[in-house]
Amino acid sequence: MLTEIYGELDGYYEEMVEIRRHLHQHPELSFQEYNTAAFIKEYYERLGVEVKDKVGGNGLTALIKGGKPGKTVAFRADFDALPIQDEKSVPYKSTVPGVMHACGHDGHTALLLVFAKVMLKHQEQLSGNILLIHQHAEEYAPGGAKNMIEAGSLEGADAVFGTHLWSIAPLGTIQYRTGPIMAAADRFEIVIKGKGGHGAQPHLTKDAIVIGAQVISNLQQIVSRKVDPVEAAVVSVGTFKAENAFNIIADTAKLIGTARTFKEEVRDQAEQEVERAVKAACLLYDADYTCLYDRGYPAVVNHEKETLFVKEIAGGIPGVNNVEESPLQMGGEDFAYYLQERKGSFFFTGAMPADPEAAQPHHHPKFDFDEKAMLIAAKTFASLFVNYEHEAADQTSTVNAAVN
Amino acid sequence: MLTEIYGELDGYYEEMVEIRRHLHQHPELSFQEYNTAAFIKEYYERLGVEVKDKVGGNGLTALIKGGKPGKTVAFRADFDALPIQDEKSVPYKSTVPGVMHACGHDGHTALLLVFAKVMLKHQEQLSGNILLIHQHAEEYAPGGAKNMIEAGSLEGADAVFGTHLWSIAPLGTIQYRTGPIMAAADRFEIVIKGKGGHGAQPHLTKDAIVIGAQVISNLQQIVSRKVDPVEAAVVSVGTFKAENAFNIIADTAKLIGTARTFKEEVRDQAEQEVERAVKAACLLYDADYTCLYDRGYPAVVNHEKETLFVKEIAGGIPGVNNVEESPLQMGGEDFAYYLQERKGSFFFTGAMPADPEAAQPHHHPKFDFDEKAMLIAAKTFASLFVNYEHEAADQTSTVNAAVN
Amino acid sequence: MLTEIYGELDGYYEEMVEIRRHLHQHPELSFQEYNTAAFIKEYYERLGVEVKDKVGGNGLTALIKGGKPGKTVAFRADFDALPIQDEKSVPYKSTVPGVMHACGHDGHTALLLVFAKVMLKHQEQLSGNILLIHQHAEEYAPGGAKNMIEAGSLEGADAVFGTHLWSIAPLGTIQYRTGPIMAAADRFEIVIKGKGGHGAQPHLTKDAIVIGAQVISNLQQIVSRKVDPVEAAVVSVGTFKAENAFNIIADTAKLIGTARTFKEEVRDQAEQEVERAVKAACLLYDADYTCLYDRGYPAVVNHEKETLFVKEIAGGIPGVNNVEESPLQMGGEDFAYYLQERKGSFFFTGAMPADPEAAQPHHHPKFDFDEKAMLIAAKTFASLFVNYEHEAADQTSTVNAAVN
Amino acid sequence: MLTEIYGELDGYYEEMVEIRRHLHQHPELSFQEYNTAAFIKEYYERLGVEVKDKVGGNGLTALIKGGKPGKTVAFRADFDALPIQDEKSVPYKSTVPGVMHACGHDGHTALLLVFAKVMLKHQEQLSGNILLIHQHAEEYAPGGAKNMIEAGSLEGADAVFGTHLWSIAPLGTIQYRTGPIMAAADRFEIVIKGKGGHGAQPHLTKDAIVIGAQVISNLQQIVSRKVDPVEAAVVSVGTFKAENAFNIIADTAKLIGTARTFKEEVRDQAEQEVERAVKAACLLYDADYTCLYDRGYPAVVNHEKETLFVKEIAGGIPGVNNVEESPLQMGGEDFAYYLQERKGSFFFTGAMPADPEAAQPHHHPKFDFDEKAMLIAAKTFASLFVNYEHEAADQTSTVNAAVN
Repeated sequence: MLTEIYGELDGYYEEMVEIRRHLHQHPELSFQEYNTAAFIKEYYERLGVEVKDKVGGNGLTALIKGGKPGKTVAFRADFDALPIQDEKSVPYKSTVPGVMHACGHDGHTALLLVFAKVMLKHQEQLSGNILLIHQHAEEYAPGGAKNMIEAGSLEGADAVFGTHLWSIAPLGTIQYRTGPIMAAADRFEIVIKGKGGHGAQPHLTKDAIVIGAQVISNLQQIVSRKVDPVEAAVVSVGTFKAENAFNIIADTAKLIGTARTFKEEVRDQAEQEVERAVKAACLLYDADYTCLYDRGYPAVVNHEKETLFVKEIAGGIPGVNNVEESPLQMGGEDFAYYLQERKGSFFFTGAMPADPEAAQPHHHPKFDFDEKAMLIAAKTFASLFVNYEHEAADQTSTVNAAVN
Repeated sequence: MLTEIYGELDGYYEEMVEIRRHLHQHPELSFQEYNTAAFIKEYYERLGVEVKDKVGGNGLTALIKGGKPGKTVAFRADFDALPIQDEKSVPYKSTVPGVMHACGHDGHTALLLVFAKVMLKHQEQLSGNILLIHQHAEEYAPGGAKNMIEAGSLEGADAVFGTHLWSIAPLGTIQYRTGPIMAAADRFEIVIKGKGGHGAQPHLTKDAIVIGAQVISNLQQIVSRKVDPVEAAVVSVGTFKAENAFNIIADTAKLIGTARTFKEEVRDQAEQEVERAVKAACLLYDADYTCLYDRGYPAVVNHEKETLFVKEIAGGIPGVNNVEESPLQMGGEDFAYYLQERKGSFFFTGAMPADPEAAQPHHHPKFDFDEKAMLIAAKTFASLFVNYEHEAADQTSTVNAAVN
Repeated sequence: MLTEIYGELDGYYEEMVEIRRHLHQHPELSFQEYNTAAFIKEYYERLGVEVKDKVGGNGLTALIKGGKPGKTVAFRADFDALPIQDEKSVPYKSTVPGVMHACGHDGHTALLLVFAKVMLKHQEQLSGNILLIHQHAEEYAPGGAKNMIEAGSLEGADAVFGTHLWSIAPLGTIQYRTGPIMAAADRFEIVIKGKGGHGAQPHLTKDAIVIGAQVISNLQQIVSRKVDPVEAAVVSVGTFKAENAFNIIADTAKLIGTARTFKEEVRDQAEQEVERAVKAACLLYDADYTCLYDRGYPAVVNHEKETLFVKEIAGGIPGVNNVEESPLQMGGEDFAYYLQERKGSFFFTGAMPADPEAAQPHHHPKFDFDEKAMLIAAKTFASLFVNYEHEAADQTSTVNAAVN
Repeated sequence: MLTEIYGELDGYYEEMVEIRRHLHQHPELSFQEYNTAAFIKEYYERLGVEVKDKVGGNGLTALIKGGKPGKTVAFRADFDALPIQDEKSVPYKSTVPGVMHACGHDGHTALLLVFAKVMLKHQEQLSGNILLIHQHAEEYAPGGAKNMIEAGSLEGADAVFGTHLWSIAPLGTIQYRTGPIMAAADRFEIVIKGKGGHGAQPHLTKDAIVIGAQVISNLQQIVSRKVDPVEAAVVSVGTFKAENAFNIIADTAKLIGTARTFKEEVRDQAEQEVERAVKAACLLYDADYTCLYDRGYPAVVNHEKETLFVKEIAGGIPGVNNVEESPLQMGGEDFAYYLQERKGSFFFTGAMPADPEAAQPHHHPKFDFDEKAMLIAAKTFASLFVNYEHEAADQTSTVNAAVN
């Protein structure tokens, strides 16, 4: 059956590209994806598939019930775009000024829709059910995943899989990783409340710039001294702002930054230590401060069995010539929330454009990807679903053999 | 003769107040003091005194030639105002939004004009000549003094004196100080040129905020370790600016600050060390930088003999009950340039308002001064001039006696 | 055959314990292990096995040639002790004051000797050869491994395996890890050469303590900003020494520390950045410095195929109930050199004493281990050897299957 | 009479030199000056002058009662030596290994003894009394002055004068200064109590070296930010000690340093801020500390009238060709205590050796001074005493005239 499905996906490749390019030309910002949601809904309605919209916001879910009993496996694609001006010169470039699909979510959506269309043709033969999750607002915390889950999007699902088309890995590569794969990405905002005054009279002030500089120095020690060196973590400050006349000592200084971690206990530590860094710096001048630490998405933590299943499956997908362990990625993803609720795995599908000039990192104004990667991802989803029950059984024994 | 002059000054006190209040209601910013200059010019023309205008800008000089031979002694008053909104509720408050005589230059001008008027009456009896220097643009570097001197304002002068009405010293006090009395006030502007990037990938960047924080730390050591501890100096940074998204590492950071010193060698040292502080911080990341160090007014350095003369004279002025050494003042004054060209002294005339609520520091939106201080300053100028030749001789011998 | 071997190893368990306790009572420091080497030589001579001594120092190698053709597989055990006073109260505690087997090398040696004895009994049936490497001086850089290799100890070997009895992992656990498993452990020594002077005259000095403090601060940034956050690294300073009278500014300051890394490019970066940290700090005062960076053992980097083989094998060893991935270990091991020359893997054999009080970290004065771990390790070696040729073939296909 | 006295002092110059050289050859450490005290006592006994010994320790006082009524004026000389090895090659070099008069106290003593001898000859003519204070233990806190005063050494004195032979000022120079002239010299000792551990596991430690480095950085800000920039102050650390193996993180670090200030409020501030610097640094790691701040001698604060009297008198002393204001001296002196009890002044008598190689700073192993400075100092004492009553009256009026 899989061979057949692969062939059909190949046959719909042009439609997949067409959908992707349509979405690429009509990007919508996070939480404002009304037309994209309508487009998706319409697609399923045309297919005659049961679809729910406004799930936790602009999200949608659709269900393909297989003809035979089996597990329900969810696949997720996100569909929001970014506040970036498209600088590509391709015909399908964004038509919306300052908004762009610079991360590949258009491709995620296109491949999931066509995957659904093809699987639907085999509905009767399928063991188990396919749950299709079209998620809004991945790019902007608090994100859409959490709300969709709270609205029941995972109900009935036994496992969940997702992929990211990955412009920095070559076409033909699939990257998997057990355990943490993408970081928890938090944001902090510190305001030092010193006491301003004349630059010639520092003794009458509490110099917020000097205190802020000390905070920067203290923050370095979170990673260099406080976090276990075998745990990856980063603390970076993007904004340091205190603007006064050259001869006026700053009353206040604002620092805004990010902490990236992979384990919850390290994340807790980062949160505590960011505040302590500020507190210690302020103590030297008996200054006040506020320190807000906003938790973004948690780390994406893949389940071992499902990830090894992805690894095994991936090797057999036509077009895949390299299955490798992914390095830790410091970026964040709200797919994390699905993996807190269900077993599953998130993997990267290599999508680097053949043209080296087009090969840009994600979120770049000239970002693009090799559209053939959509086909690989769709086939991987198909194989994951078809092999899930049987293969899962086989795979279990294989993995057991390997482990014991 | 002095007693007579004192009496006449008393008689014109109301006119002095009237002039001061007129100017107070019509303040003009540095380099834009057209009406004030016209007012001064007209006053001298009405007196029939030879007056030059447009001296090095909006400056004016007038000369009263005494009937007897003698030295030419210059007295200087500045007449520009500040970009501050007057928040007083007195009838004579500023009528110009956002502009205010918040430093007492209106008083300096009023007292010098009336001093000229009174001295003119005794022209025939006077030994030597009185040179009246009305200077524009003291508040804003590069100031008016330098240009006026280059335009010849000090020509023929043997000595030069100036005073500042001083709202932070009680009425009746005169403060003198030999050697440095007010600081050289320089400005520096540093741009750290690092390399931006994603907050999660510090290893691919040169974090301009971290480098800037190190500059702040390094700058502390100029005063704590590098300058002779018995020399007063300050280095303060008023602006630290690097604004990026919370998860973006800063490409550049701008720091703007001031260095205050009293000796040229310390000033040279400050200039060199500010750059070295930046250079050392950048070296850690192989980052680039620019470091501009703009020298403002030099330190006001009083001549010893003329300052001791002020001290002696001051004790005899009606209304003066306290002659004391001034502490070093970290503020700047372009009177410094006159003292680089001629012997002389700059002193403070206590002018604290009796009403404690009105007693505010200079440049405060509610700044005011006790107008009776104008009378004391004018009388001191009169005594300095009258006693200059004779007293100078006496004073020389006295001082010699005291020193040897 | 393996079952038989396991049984025989069980049978010789008491001898294994006896040997271990003998060695434990007679520990010798690195490079001084003369009696231990003689003990090992004698053991092999009694077995009638060809043994070479004085291999690259006090090292020895012995070879058991199998009756059938096959690969030569090396197994290594180290046998030096530490300059630590044994504080245990067991009957077999060290009899040498200040010297102690506080790391388990006594156990490594005992288990390898008995392993040799048992395998020898099956010599005719064995495919391939067993190379037994008894290494001196693991505890003290530059270590014995490098010299033994240069002296030919690996000649003829196709693969090499080693284990460390691991008192911090429970008995029954085997820890494997592909790629880096133990850190490169380097040492650096920095001397800041400032200019001393009186504490009251900092401006005439170059304060080596202030510079040294800045070096400490700069060093933090190697890990926090310069090394890729997904790479583990540590830079720590153990000594900061500048001793002068309270009122004397330091002429020199000495800092001694360590850098731990897992990849050669990160190690290179650490070496460069340690010097840069010093250079930048010295620049602020135009001070001189020396910075010596001595490379210790490189990181132990396991080969993937051989490590997965260990993982597979381990699951089948009697007494093993947990096969898990080892966390990165920040300690160093000169087994690293063998893996630079041959394929192979280094793994940890859980050996935590049942008595919680006896369970201490390695190098602790009360360190001990559960001697039954020696049996597990010896059986693992046996299985690794016996399964090497055949299993290797099987394993290759299995692994291929798993990967593709 | 003064002319006569000057002549007699000239006549005894050889004896003065002889005494000085005798003492120079037999130096004694602070609080151990038994032989020196005996030598002084004997000298006075030979003169037939009433002398008290063991005043507050090894101190002595002698009184010369004038034949006419008048004030009692005290003159003080200290007589202890330093723990320094004499490296000079002169015949009169120290005979005591490791002990040396490297600060000129031998000269102070010699000149005061000969001064007494000469004044005694004019006893009948003298108005008022001369109190001679020979003080032990100036070099080592808590010093001898405090104890001598408590033991009554100043009883009956109306004023007190002292001088320091000053090898860094040319012979013929007298340096005076009103108000503070020498600093309060305090000592602090900080122990950071962190938590040690392995260099590879900083997250399990509280790194006392990193904390100590932060203390050093914080201490810089006392002078750069916290003390009024017109007030002189220094904070320096002479010892930073934490010695561990290169791979062990420090449990504790010890820092020992000094703070120098001129005003009591600045001194109080320094004491508070040193502790705060430690507290803030420890807070970042929740580490403990101890911080002892031992107050040494207070600042030497000269009384204005008596100092101006010294200035006037000094101009008339044969051999004096330069009377100048002393810069602030950051060194300490327990003469400070006398000036807290009585009016008086402490001044510097230029004593730089003619031979440039012999011209070394105080406390240098090759320190020496021009012995003719002793004569100048003795003559200045004589003039201060003789002119005290009369001149004091004159001087008062003169000064009044000058000050008004």
